[in-house]
Amino acid sequence: MASRGPSLPRITDVAALAGVSTSTASKALNDTGQLREETRERVRRAAEQLGFTPDSRGRALSSGRSYTVGLITTDSSGRFSIPIMLGAEDALSAGEMALVLCDTRDDPLREQHYLRSLVSRRVDGIIVTGRRTEPREPIDVPIPVVYAFSPSTDPADTSVIVDDHGGASSAVQHLLSLGRRRIAHITGPASHRSALSRAAATVESAGDALVGEPMHGEWSERWGRHAVDVLLRSGTEVDAISCGSDQIARGVCDRLRELGRSVPDDLAVTGYDNWSVMALASRPPLTTVDLELEELGRHTAQLLLEAIAGSPHRGLVELPTRLVTRESTLGT
Amino acid sequence: MASRGPSLPRITDVAALAGVSTSTASKALNDTGQLREETRERVRRAAEQLGFTPDSRGRALSSGRSYTVGLITTDSSGRFSIPIMLGAEDALSAGEMALVLCDTRDDPLREQHYLRSLVSRRVDGIIVTGRRTEPREPIDVPIPVVYAFSPSTDPADTSVIVDDHGGASSAVQHLLSLGRRRIAHITGPASHRSALSRAAATVESAGDALVGEPMHGEWSERWGRHAVDVLLRSGTEVDAISCGSDQIARGVCDRLRELGRSVPDDLAVTGYDNWSVMALASRPPLTTVDLELEELGRHTAQLLLEAIAGSPHRGLVELPTRLVTRESTLGT
Repeated sequence: MASRGPSLPRITDVAALAGVSTSTASKALNDTGQLREETRERVRRAAEQLGFTPDSRGRALSSGRSYTVGLITTDSSGRFSIPIMLGAEDALSAGEMALVLCDTRDDPLREQHYLRSLVSRRVDGIIVTGRRTEPREPIDVPIPVVYAFSPSTDPADTSVIVDDHGGASSAVQHLLSLGRRRIAHITGPASHRSALSRAAATVESAGDALVGEPMHGEWSERWGRHAVDVLLRSGTEVDAISCGSDQIARGVCDRLRELGRSVPDDLAVTGYDNWSVMALASRPPLTTVDLELEELGRHTAQLLLEAIAGSPHRGLVELPTRLVTRESTLGT
Repeated sequence: MASRGPSLPRITDVAALAGVSTSTASKALNDTGQLREETRERVRRAAEQLGFTPDSRGRALSSGRSYTVGLITTDSSGRFSIPIMLGAEDALSAGEMALVLCDTRDDPLREQHYLRSLVSRRVDGIIVTGRRTEPREPIDVPIPVVYAFSPSTDPADTSVIVDDHGGASSAVQHLLSLGRRRIAHITGPASHRSALSRAAATVESAGDALVGEPMHGEWSERWGRHAVDVLLRSGTEVDAISCGSDQIARGVCDRLRELGRSVPDDLAVTGYDNWSVMALASRPPLTTVDLELEELGRHTAQLLLEAIAGSPHRGLVELPTRLVTRESTLGT
């Protein structure tokens, strides 16, 4: 291999500068062996002067650990996986663990390639995440794995997910607490588990206050605008709309404004996700449900560290969401 | 350390199952030594049956390389760094390199911690990226580094950046080609290099067709809406507005529609970034400048691999943007 620019100082360079043997230098830097404090100090100064950084790979090989965790994601848009990844990275880096990123782009062959590569690198564990809340097939590796956001279909695996039922209920409870008694629900495709579970929780929490059936469509502003037309054309009286996503809620607010209906005076509106580019840019800004994905990433990393240490937690962990109230229900 | 569940099969297990010595098994799997094809095949089958994966860390130690690259980012929102990261990861994984993610959250102490950790892991190189196009202080490590999006202040370093001048010019050329001759420019803060360079390119390309001075404000939809009010209240005749971001352009389109002005019949509008949640959700969808950030990530990784192989490319590399035309200039 050709030159790589200035080369890293070695332990032998430190020993030479301090005027001691390599083994003495090593003992001094590792705080082992019987050495005079003066010698230890001289070696430390030499190491500092040379900018010597010990090679952690030796520690890794001798401990049988690589201090590395792989993160496998199928969410190329990063909308859900990025905050999970950042939370996991934050929790892991505090423990000197590194996070290796593997974006499978929904390609099973690519996933297999990554799994082989991670196993051959002897990562201490793997986090698997995705963009959907549907359970996914578990991966088959002989090292600890924790699933985040997209749980494993195997109930014996460790999976950390969002409590969507609690999240949707909290939005409805908030609308009821404001005295709203005619609540419609506009959400995403009935083929998506997240839309279905949020709709089920809405139906259950709203009880008699629910108007009509949950309205399923795309996860888009366009569907939010269109659903408002359908809803109002039907002549149904409505004083609140709970939405399955912030994008839908933003479309709902835009269309209501265009039709001369005031939010929240005429109709209160709630979103879901607390996706800031939607929730804050909406007119008015959205009361919504924060999925606390960064916290989910941190919790996932903690459970993985416990599994690596020999104490795996089996089964599903549901983490709470957080209701964020803004002008779309409270007014200004 | 406690149990980690099923343990990884070892080379000794493979040798035992194949009925050969450990050294024979190793030769068979590494395709070295003089062995009968039959023996080699028996060992391969045993390895496959046990799910044996060779430990790549040995290769790494003996080659002096870790086959790992660190990515340092200050962009916690991930808006710009995520596509760069995914592009880099894509290019690196093809070469069996792993990407370790380090999110500094704009904290210099955290950055120092990560640099020490990456050096002690003996990563082969480091990619540094950020959310601003302002040059940043170089990092001080004795391994190859390439800067992406946020260039290094040291011209001898390798930096890969977006050609913002070309990007802004392409939007103006497009408006001119459509016969627009009264073009206003609404963009972000004058304290941001990206806003300034896009404004300078717009002034230069538009020439006499530019109406008034570039209007600087926030990177927000709100500023786009407000700027339209200011612009139209001034009574200036305008037939096109080029914007410094898709968020601003979306606000511009919303306000023009509210005021009964047709886009693009009365005024053509261009955005910048091709951020799909803005550019596609805008009414009408935006003609905009794609920064090709994933390609920028791939190119950065390629240059880093060349530097690792001993052929560093010094200086600034500007990558071209791509004009994406949609209804906000072309109509339906």
